Amino acid sequence: AQMALERDYESQREMDTRYRVLMEVTRDAVVVVSVGTGRIVDLNTAGAHLLGGTKPELMGAAIAQEFEGRRRGEFLESLTNLAVSDTAAPIDLLARRSQSRLLVTPTVFRAAGERLLLCRLESAAKVVAVQDGLS
Amino acid sequence: AQMALERDYESQREMDTRYRVLMEVTRDAVVVVSVGTGRIVDLNTAGAHLLGGTKPELMGAAIAQEFEGRRRGEFLESLTNLAVSDTAAPIDLLARRSQSRLLVTPTVFRAAGERLLLCRLESAAKVVAVQDGLS
Repeated sequence: AQMALERDYESQREMDTRYRVLMEVTRDAVVVVSVGTGRIVDLNTAGAHLLGGTKPELMGAAIAQEFEGRRRGEFLESLTNLAVSDTAAPIDLLARRSQSRLLVTPTVFRAAGERLLLCRLESAAKVVAVQDGLS
Repeated sequence: AQMALERDYESQREMDTRYRVLMEVTRDAVVVVSVGTGRIVDLNTAGAHLLGGTKPELMGAAIAQEFEGRRRGEFLESLTNLAVSDTAAPIDLLARRSQSRLLVTPTVFRAAGERLLLCRLESAAKVVAVQDGLS
């Protein structure tokens, strides 16, 4: 049983590495938020860039504070509701640090007994530019 | 020590879940390959789609066989060389099942003593269309 646990542990460590590599390799800007605390538990460089800060600055920050005019409870509730709804439309928000409009697409999941939101961020300006370019 | 191990184990399981969620949420097409065996150890739906198969079909498949005119040893060597080089340019390959040209950007990393390649795939046709649209 101890050996099986260790083998399992080893394979979990591999997943951990895969997760970290994927976070930095993906071109999507990603922020992971704890629903319980409302704080950022992880983000990638692209995510930090769109929010207008650095990874060390933003790690542990309250997500609602990173957007203009959003109160904590209401904000997390709307993200969670969006994540479980069938609509594909993201929320349009103004990032406080970068003062840029971001489209936020949340996905809610449960891990180790905690609810987490994985949010994909996109610059609203860029989305419009690409759509115009292709039309 | 047992409790610390269990706590650690729990947090690793959380990483595992985060990895799986991120794989499906990212808009990038991703394929993870073992350098040792040359086989696909994981891929997301977008990755399977670009290769022209389904996830169950492609899981465990020899990656070199998924591209036209590529011998296994040579193929893995060129991907690994590209991954460790400073050039950002991806390899342009023809996918056998979908018969579409793909740009492959590999990142090499070591996890649990094994070398893995995380490959980002992109349709070459789509890249050209977006560039034309924006120019």
